[in-house]
Amino acid sequence: MGLSVEAENKAANMESGEIPENANEHCPGPRSESAGKSDTCQGCPNQEVCATTPKGPDPDLVVIAERMATVKHKILVLSGKGGVGKSTFSAQLSFALAAMDFQVGLLDIDICGPSIPKMLGLEGQDVHQSNLGWSPVYVESNLGVMSVGFMLPNPDEAVIWRGPRKNGLIKQFLKDVYWGELDFLVVDAPPGTSDEHISIVQLLEATGIDGAIIVTTPQQVSLIDVRKEVSFCKKVGVQVLGVVENMSGLCQPMMDFKFMRMSETGEHRDVTEWVKEYVREKAPELQNLIACSEVFDSSGGGAEKMSREMGVPFLGKVPLDPQLCKAAEEGRSCFIDQKCGVSAPALKMIIEKLIENHGFSRMLVDDCA
Amino acid sequence: MGLSVEAENKAANMESGEIPENANEHCPGPRSESAGKSDTCQGCPNQEVCATTPKGPDPDLVVIAERMATVKHKILVLSGKGGVGKSTFSAQLSFALAAMDFQVGLLDIDICGPSIPKMLGLEGQDVHQSNLGWSPVYVESNLGVMSVGFMLPNPDEAVIWRGPRKNGLIKQFLKDVYWGELDFLVVDAPPGTSDEHISIVQLLEATGIDGAIIVTTPQQVSLIDVRKEVSFCKKVGVQVLGVVENMSGLCQPMMDFKFMRMSETGEHRDVTEWVKEYVREKAPELQNLIACSEVFDSSGGGAEKMSREMGVPFLGKVPLDPQLCKAAEEGRSCFIDQKCGVSAPALKMIIEKLIENHGFSRMLVDDCA
Repeated sequence: MGLSVEAENKAANMESGEIPENANEHCPGPRSESAGKSDTCQGCPNQEVCATTPKGPDPDLVVIAERMATVKHKILVLSGKGGVGKSTFSAQLSFALAAMDFQVGLLDIDICGPSIPKMLGLEGQDVHQSNLGWSPVYVESNLGVMSVGFMLPNPDEAVIWRGPRKNGLIKQFLKDVYWGELDFLVVDAPPGTSDEHISIVQLLEATGIDGAIIVTTPQQVSLIDVRKEVSFCKKVGVQVLGVVENMSGLCQPMMDFKFMRMSETGEHRDVTEWVKEYVREKAPELQNLIACSEVFDSSGGGAEKMSREMGVPFLGKVPLDPQLCKAAEEGRSCFIDQKCGVSAPALKMIIEKLIENHGFSRMLVDDCA
Repeated sequence: MGLSVEAENKAANMESGEIPENANEHCPGPRSESAGKSDTCQGCPNQEVCATTPKGPDPDLVVIAERMATVKHKILVLSGKGGVGKSTFSAQLSFALAAMDFQVGLLDIDICGPSIPKMLGLEGQDVHQSNLGWSPVYVESNLGVMSVGFMLPNPDEAVIWRGPRKNGLIKQFLKDVYWGELDFLVVDAPPGTSDEHISIVQLLEATGIDGAIIVTTPQQVSLIDVRKEVSFCKKVGVQVLGVVENMSGLCQPMMDFKFMRMSETGEHRDVTEWVKEYVREKAPELQNLIACSEVFDSSGGGAEKMSREMGVPFLGKVPLDPQLCKAAEEGRSCFIDQKCGVSAPALKMIIEKLIENHGFSRMLVDDCA
C-alpha cells in the first residue's frame, strides 16, 4: 500500500499528454516527439520522465478497429447513479435483440461489480481461448457475453483495482475477444463518468459508437447524476440515443401483497390470510386490481421532463416490477413468459422505439438485400 | 483524448512500487533507493522511468495525521452495488449522531456522482477557505459536510476524471479541510472497490479507521457485490462494523396506494377514488392495514444469512419507505417528525446497535470525565 497519489497523478497526466503545472515555458507537451529533448526542456523537473513517455498514436487502436470491423452497431448503456437497473436493462435489451434474431454481444465493463453473468444465467462459466482470441460465453448461439466475472477464481473475491488496471482489461476485451459478426455490441458500463467511461469512448471512438442509452430512476437525486451523464456524452461526442426511466413506481396485483396490522405496541402482525378471506367475502371487486406506489418521488417531473429540458430523446418508463427483479436474479429473459406482466410490455415498447428511431432494423434488412 | 491506456497502466504500476513485467532479473523495485541506478538496472527498458520515480514514504501522510488528530472515530460507509441507499444511510446516520449531540463530519468521496449535498439540504452551497483550511458546509453547528458537489460551477456538468485526479482530491479533502474537534467522521464512498476505496484506506490507515458499515439490498445480485466488499475490508485490514439491509421490502399504509384496473385492451384505469369509497363501505377493516411487497427477491436469505456466513455483524433491515426517499430528496432528517413511520424506527435501532456494539457513546463519556 505504498502508493503516492500525487506522484501517480502526475505520471498519469504526463501519459495523457497534459502539460505538467511545473513545466518550463514553451513546453512542447509530454507526448510530442521533442518531449524532454527540446531546448526549452533544459532544467525542467519533468525532462527525464518526458523523454521516456511513449510517443504518437496508440498501435492497439488499429487492432481494436480490426476487431470492430465485423460489429455493425455499438451501444453504450450508462447511468449516473448505480442501482437504477442499468445492468437489468442491458441484459433484457440483449435478450430482446437476440429474440429478434439479431446477432448480439454483451460486454460488461463494470470491473469491480460485474452483475452481467448472473443476470444472463451464466454464473460459474469460464472464458475460453482459441486461436481467434477469447471466446465470449454464449447464452444462445446469437447472444455472446464477456465479463470479468468469468475470469475470477472466487466470486466473493474483491477486484481491488485502480483505474489503469481496469482500463487495461477493457482494452483487452476490445482487442482480444473474438465476437465474430455482430449486429449489436451492447456495452454495460458502471455508474459514473470516470476511467471505464473515458476508456471505452477513447478506444471505440475511431470505430464509431452509435450512441448511449441512459438509465435512471424518477427521483431528483438520480436525475442530478443523469444530467452529468448527458453532459459527459456531449463532451466526448457520443450521441444520446435516449433516456429510460426505470423503477417508475411499484405496480403489482393487489392480492400479491402481504398485509400487516400494527398493534398498539408498534409490532406488525401478518394478517394476509385473513385479508384474502375478508376481501373474497366482503369486497370481491378488489381481487382483480393492481396496486401502485410511487416509491421514488417523481414530483419534479421525472426523467421525461429532464430529457425535454436537456434536448435528448425520452424512450419511456418501466415500472418497478418484483417479477422483473426476480427474472434478473434468475438470469432469465422477461419476454419469454407472461410473468413480468407489468414491466415486459413497457420494456418491449422502449426497445422497439429505439430500433425504429435509429433505423436499426431497416439497416439490417438493407444489409441482407 | 490521446491517452495510451497501457502506458498509463505501466506508469501507475511503477509508482505503486509493482515490479514491471519486462524488468531485468533481480529488479530492486521502482520505489527502492537504488531504482534505475543499481547494476541490475543496466539495459532494463524501465531504467530511466525508475530513476525518476519518487522514493520513500509520502510526506502528505504526516499532514493528514495532524488533521485527523482531532477526530475520534472514522467510519466508512461502503456498498458493493450502487443505488442501495448508501448515501441516504450516510446522511441519516450523520443526522442521527448529530441529534445525539455528537460532533459530526460527513465526507463525500463520490467524486463523479456526489449526492450528499442534496441529501443534507445543502445544494448550491460553497466551500469557504480560511487560514485554517477549507471550511466544511454546516447543516447545524455540530454537523459539517464536505463534497465535490460544493465545488462545481454548474451542477449539471460531468466530472470526467480518471482515478489519479479523483485520488488527488480525496487527499486534499483529508489534508486541507479544517474539521475541528469531531466525535465522528463519516465517509460516504462510491460503490465498488477501486481508486476511491484504496486511496481513502491508504491515506487514513496510519491514523486509524474504526471500521466500515456495508449497505446492501436483499437480492442476490446485490449480495454478490457485498461479499466482494467484505473481502475488500478483510484484505485492506478494515474492520466490518456491520451490514445494513436496505430496501427490505416496501411497506406503506394500504390507503396510500393508487389502484388501477386493467381493461381488456391492456390499458390501466385509475380507480383509486372508487376503491376508497368501496373499502369504506364494504370492508372498513382494510383501512388501517399496512401493505408490504417484497420488491427485491430475498428468497436466498438476504443480508442476514450472508453476514452469518461471512462472519460479520448484521445490524438490521430498513424497509423501502417512500417517505424516507422523500426525506432524502428534500435533505431532511427522517427522525424529526413522524412521517417516516416505517423506516425511522428501523434506522434508529441500527444506529443504536452500532453505537452500543462498539462502545462509541461510552468512549465519549469517558473522554468528558
